[in-house]
Amino acid sequence: MNYNPNNIFAKILRGEIPAYKVYEDTQTLAFMDVMPQSDGHTLVIPRVAAETLFDLSTEELQSLIAVTQRIAIAAKRAFHADGMTLMQFNGSAAGQTVPHVHFHVIPRYNGKSLQSHSRTMANNELLAQHAEHLRALLNP
Amino acid sequence: MNYNPNNIFAKILRGEIPAYKVYEDTQTLAFMDVMPQSDGHTLVIPRVAAETLFDLSTEELQSLIAVTQRIAIAAKRAFHADGMTLMQFNGSAAGQTVPHVHFHVIPRYNGKSLQSHSRTMANNELLAQHAEHLRALLNP
Repeated sequence: MNYNPNNIFAKILRGEIPAYKVYEDTQTLAFMDVMPQSDGHTLVIPRVAAETLFDLSTEELQSLIAVTQRIAIAAKRAFHADGMTLMQFNGSAAGQTVPHVHFHVIPRYNGKSLQSHSRTMANNELLAQHAEHLRALLNP
Repeated sequence: MNYNPNNIFAKILRGEIPAYKVYEDTQTLAFMDVMPQSDGHTLVIPRVAAETLFDLSTEELQSLIAVTQRIAIAAKRAFHADGMTLMQFNGSAAGQTVPHVHFHVIPRYNGKSLQSHSRTMANNELLAQHAEHLRALLNP
């Protein structure tokens, strides 16, 4: 493992740059993807310094997936999604763009294809509104 | 939940149709995807009758992800993969084609895009050979 502590998610974890956070606990943070592939696209990351799936212990991964499931349940309700896609990329060959392990939780809607990732920056007000919807369900 | 016990993965679990199995335990089964998106594409499913992520308990999901990680580790080694993609689709809006919850473990190779899913049936000898490579690492 050759973790780069200056990656953007590490900075979000340290509070050095802002994020539209929707949930956090001692091990995990979830926040809106600012270049969403669909409305409500959320990222779930562990606090531990790990670049990929291969750098997580089984227990760390199990904590991460438990929160990922909670986010997916909340996102389905918050955004009236018809389906839900989870994606998790390891290595540049897999399209990983930020070298801190993360699960994508991507709400799906009938008849709508996914937008390309890392192409369009979402409207800030829309992201803030989506985060608020999710937070309301996750932190009642 | 409205689980259809005649889906193809349920039949594989009951042994009614064959599969290129690579790993199994009391809760989980892993086998080669017969329409792989890349060499070594493997599916990991729980034995429990569950259509989507939303039908699994946290504990069932945690068992499933632990095996998924083991398969990913073995696949990286077996196929000398440069990267690894996990995907998990819930609902037809998300592109789920078999209504039994499953994780895709997809080895990635530098400079190679993914093939479209459910389009090309792989060569049986190649699948058998890939399964053998994985089994050797998973069941030493």
